[in-house]
Amino acid sequence: MELRIRFLKWSAGVPVAMLHSKTAAKIGVHANDRISIKTLSKKLEEVSTVVDIIGNKVIKTGEIAVSSELKKRLGLRVGQKVEINIASASDSLIFIKKKLNNKKLSESEISRIIQDVVDNSLSESEIALFVSSMYKHGMSMKETIYLINSIVKHGNKLNLKSKNIADKHSIGGVAGNRTTPIIVPICAAAGLIMPKSSSRAITTSAGTADVIETIARIEFSIPELKKIVRKTNACLVWGGSLGIVPADSKIIKVEKMLKIDPEAQLLASIMSKKLAAGSRYIIIDIPYGKHAKVEKAKALDLKKKFEYLGKHFRKKLKVVLTEAKEPMGKGVGPALELIDVINILDPKLEGPQDLEKKSLLLAGELLELAGKAKKGRGRKLAEEILSSGKAFEKFKQIIKAQGGKLNEIVLGKFQKNVIVKKSGKVIEIDIKKINSLARTAGCPADKFAGLFLHAKTGEKLNKGNRIITIYAESKNRLKQAIIQYNKLKPLKIK
Amino acid sequence: MELRIRFLKWSAGVPVAMLHSKTAAKIGVHANDRISIKTLSKKLEEVSTVVDIIGNKVIKTGEIAVSSELKKRLGLRVGQKVEINIASASDSLIFIKKKLNNKKLSESEISRIIQDVVDNSLSESEIALFVSSMYKHGMSMKETIYLINSIVKHGNKLNLKSKNIADKHSIGGVAGNRTTPIIVPICAAAGLIMPKSSSRAITTSAGTADVIETIARIEFSIPELKKIVRKTNACLVWGGSLGIVPADSKIIKVEKMLKIDPEAQLLASIMSKKLAAGSRYIIIDIPYGKHAKVEKAKALDLKKKFEYLGKHFRKKLKVVLTEAKEPMGKGVGPALELIDVINILDPKLEGPQDLEKKSLLLAGELLELAGKAKKGRGRKLAEEILSSGKAFEKFKQIIKAQGGKLNEIVLGKFQKNVIVKKSGKVIEIDIKKINSLARTAGCPADKFAGLFLHAKTGEKLNKGNRIITIYAESKNRLKQAIIQYNKLKPLKIK
Repeated sequence: MELRIRFLKWSAGVPVAMLHSKTAAKIGVHANDRISIKTLSKKLEEVSTVVDIIGNKVIKTGEIAVSSELKKRLGLRVGQKVEINIASASDSLIFIKKKLNNKKLSESEISRIIQDVVDNSLSESEIALFVSSMYKHGMSMKETIYLINSIVKHGNKLNLKSKNIADKHSIGGVAGNRTTPIIVPICAAAGLIMPKSSSRAITTSAGTADVIETIARIEFSIPELKKIVRKTNACLVWGGSLGIVPADSKIIKVEKMLKIDPEAQLLASIMSKKLAAGSRYIIIDIPYGKHAKVEKAKALDLKKKFEYLGKHFRKKLKVVLTEAKEPMGKGVGPALELIDVINILDPKLEGPQDLEKKSLLLAGELLELAGKAKKGRGRKLAEEILSSGKAFEKFKQIIKAQGGKLNEIVLGKFQKNVIVKKSGKVIEIDIKKINSLARTAGCPADKFAGLFLHAKTGEKLNKGNRIITIYAESKNRLKQAIIQYNKLKPLKIK
Repeated sequence: MELRIRFLKWSAGVPVAMLHSKTAAKIGVHANDRISIKTLSKKLEEVSTVVDIIGNKVIKTGEIAVSSELKKRLGLRVGQKVEINIASASDSLIFIKKKLNNKKLSESEISRIIQDVVDNSLSESEIALFVSSMYKHGMSMKETIYLINSIVKHGNKLNLKSKNIADKHSIGGVAGNRTTPIIVPICAAAGLIMPKSSSRAITTSAGTADVIETIARIEFSIPELKKIVRKTNACLVWGGSLGIVPADSKIIKVEKMLKIDPEAQLLASIMSKKLAAGSRYIIIDIPYGKHAKVEKAKALDLKKKFEYLGKHFRKKLKVVLTEAKEPMGKGVGPALELIDVINILDPKLEGPQDLEKKSLLLAGELLELAGKAKKGRGRKLAEEILSSGKAFEKFKQIIKAQGGKLNEIVLGKFQKNVIVKKSGKVIEIDIKKINSLARTAGCPADKFAGLFLHAKTGEKLNKGNRIITIYAESKNRLKQAIIQYNKLKPLKIK
């Protein structure tokens, strides 16, 4: 049936369409059924989506309303005509159940699942089932390679045509671990090409994409990205909007909701992005520890797997393990982490030592890997680029190319200082609890919310000193965060 | 924040609320976040739900629109005031992940998950994760008992105060296996109390609830159900509306979508309903076979588990295994199965032999178990009640008490006869493919859609004979079903 697109400024967080009950009856669909939407323009595109049904006059019988997520996915215009039909059932649910039953999947089976993820033919609950099937039994290295190939196949390559493309990636999980916006300008200033696409936060309170979004655009098309990289050697964009690995973005969305991150998908997510970007030199950062995403044994196991994949895909890949005992830097949350980053990049300012040290270590390794520095000299070169202000200049160039500007950052207007009641030494700052607290305060969606840690582990505090400041963008969020702070007690003083 | 309820005749298949973007900003929620809705009436009730955000003037800033599913859940009235807040995160996701990691769950952990399911504090994707966690590693008998206790605890008991309460239950999976509407009137006519609540279809094209709904109401409150049972000794209602085991209904909804039915939940679903209903005598029907839900070995294993649970909960419980080689009866789909049932119940008509035989077997077993017939005499008694017309009278009483009437049934107006192209014998009718085909034709939501099998396995057909008729309520559904029939080939003739 042909219907006209209606747009209600309706945001559901997921792609969903809305039909008038009379239209639904005519097509033969019921609430929560799946329909296919085909655009009738020159570029024929088809997606499948679940449907809401409304009896109210909000929508007319000849219309279909789409959520903003779906509008964006198909690039729909108001009034545009589309062809609507009942979506036929997909085979991929059968393959997902096969995996759930601990059977191995073939390359074509994995490819079909990924295709259905990309086409929106699997609902969020069905993707949740896929994520869970990978979580429970895991995937073999063979299946992981199939997964990587499928994600790359059902996506787009950057085709940057340079032999100097380099990248770094962290497995995430540590609050405040914002090394990317420091490493990228250092390495780009040294001549490496760094088309860096980052994700938004999955389990933490901010991802690099969330941080950069506070001062610049992060959503670009592939041609736009190329223009930025041609101008500055680098970029700091959100991977989700690029559409280089759309399957990965959709799976990550469900993982975020479920707060799980199965290993095969973690490996595939990182490697598929590097393949699509055409990276030749890759540094993988694995922070480990009691409150990090992984403990040491698991970190060593992951290291092996990354090295195996690096070899398989013929990349120069190095894995760096670092112990994470507490959050990195002082700020937690998009804007607060950006402040830490700028304090490190700007030679006139002073930033948190731990974050600076780790960024220099990783940048140095990448410079050596790519042959920009001799063995053992990478860190020194990185330091020089940083202290000379060249990295800061490069950072400003990138931000400018992404339509941004380094303005003064105004944090969330609702804030609360937590005061030390009894003098003592900070003996623990729990990374997971800090993440959880920052999320309650509104991160990562509320960019100017978050936490500022006035002291790190080992520091002494006197009665009456501030230990942490909580920032929020709404009164309600601040209230919830204070309640949670008192419940979680993320810092121990003794 | 206090908001007024708005109702848009909006049906999403799931509970969901809609806020104006300005209201959302004030509360600090983003699309797909969870909010809590508290009613301000005398009876304080609170549920949690996901939220859509709309910038259109459809909703005003002081309003909250709720989907019909949510309106029903809370019994909301238009204009009613409710208190809205950000929903705090739940612990149950942690417990679900524990199960996903193959760890045992404690009674309090399972109880917490079930409570969150009932309170709507878990999203469908999160419930999908729970279902999947039970699916592969399964649950121990101890955990299954915790699950049953939790479902019963977070629900309501019938409290019928009779010692003669009996029930039968099939694990489902076989198309056309509509024995319940035959067994219930037979046993009720013999003096047993049968407050039968059934589910809608999970994996098949119709459940008993879907079938009865074609001619009578099936949604009742507990006091209404009691009135019906007092009048007729029995009822044939939908379990979902009663609210005796709301957790079960919600989990089943997700299982339907994912088309999986983990064993622990299957056991818990059946046993929790029997406990809440206060049943003393229970017959469990397990159809097994190549295309049934389970094969023989699994059926025997399930039998043991049901017997163990029967003992644990001090019930007189008997498990009957029957082989299912093809669909039962001739009709598949709510109205078509009802026709089979009436043809068996009405002594003046003739119904399908296989369905009649199986119904009499199960009814006989239940009559013996409850002491209404001596050992070995149950089937004979059931036959007498059926052929005398007493069962049909009882059925009509029940339907009348549920506000229904035996009118002529008009099947879906779009139909297609499939004709045999070459004479031969029917050698196979694939149960799963028949289910799938009937669902494509619109079952179970389209009550008058479905399939009529003109021949069963072993019967001879000549060229030009009808083999199957497909009924649909919309042209589009019929078209889809014909395409699928040609693809699936659910019948083999040789």
